[in-house]
Amino acid sequence: MSEQPRPIQMNPIGTVRRANGSITVQIDAPYRPALKALDTFSHVIVFWWAVLYDEPQYRQALVVPLPYAENREAGVFACRAPVRPNLIMATVCAIESVDEASGEVRVTNIDAFDGTPVVDLKAYYPVTDRVQNAHISGYLEGWPEWFPTEGLGLMEGEGESGS
Amino acid sequence: MSEQPRPIQMNPIGTVRRANGSITVQIDAPYRPALKALDTFSHVIVFWWAVLYDEPQYRQALVVPLPYAENREAGVFACRAPVRPNLIMATVCAIESVDEASGEVRVTNIDAFDGTPVVDLKAYYPVTDRVQNAHISGYLEGWPEWFPTEGLGLMEGEGESGS
Repeated sequence: MSEQPRPIQMNPIGTVRRANGSITVQIDAPYRPALKALDTFSHVIVFWWAVLYDEPQYRQALVVPLPYAENREAGVFACRAPVRPNLIMATVCAIESVDEASGEVRVTNIDAFDGTPVVDLKAYYPVTDRVQNAHISGYLEGWPEWFPTEGLGLMEGEGESGS
Repeated sequence: MSEQPRPIQMNPIGTVRRANGSITVQIDAPYRPALKALDTFSHVIVFWWAVLYDEPQYRQALVVPLPYAENREAGVFACRAPVRPNLIMATVCAIESVDEASGEVRVTNIDAFDGTPVVDLKAYYPVTDRVQNAHISGYLEGWPEWFPTEGLGLMEGEGESGS
């Protein structure tokens, strides 16, 4: 195994589509067979690329102010800011339906804009993803302790574009 | 926002180190400030690249047999196989210690070999990552319903290399 750092290349496998209140992860044709059996799960982790921040100044961000904690800042590895050296984002989504033929994975919500490139999906496995006793930083005090049933979406003021 | 698929480039920010029974995510010097406040969390999601499978035949795998379910196969988006179009892996790890100065993040375990490139860390947030009512596929029947306290490691027979 080479241990020399070398660039890693990913190719999008689909796109987030937001239209008329419905949210779809649209998988490109060559990758649709990989959806087989995803419909037997309730949740999926969608890996997407924060393309809006794909500029050197955002990828150099290492410590950021926390919008939800006054006068607090954290390293980007200690929070979920979309600015970071590699703009890989992972959002748990509740699955509404999976259509392997059309490549449409309907989800209740996602915190990604219309048009966002998707690079991977992984079924949500409690054994790997659900931590019973998770200690969180004081800056998350008062936050819900569970993923919300309705899913996670864009923050207020971030508009949806039609399409 | 461009919606044309174009390659996405990531650069490693660190490396998994397994030696003498201890497991460290070693963060490269330029990225160490991004660890600020990570020590206030109990768990971190380590994003790594499955470099052993970075060959065209593995990145073309779309449907795979499931090692833990006889005569069952699933799409790679419906399981956690390390073969997939983009070899991005995400492992929840229990944090033992964080040393921002040396870039050492000690974890109890990880299912990645010594030398594996790491591309991101994200603090584990229950509000985004912990799903209370997750329905799982029948092929996971009988699996633990929670992330194990000791963490997730390599499967038996996958040796650790010293260093």
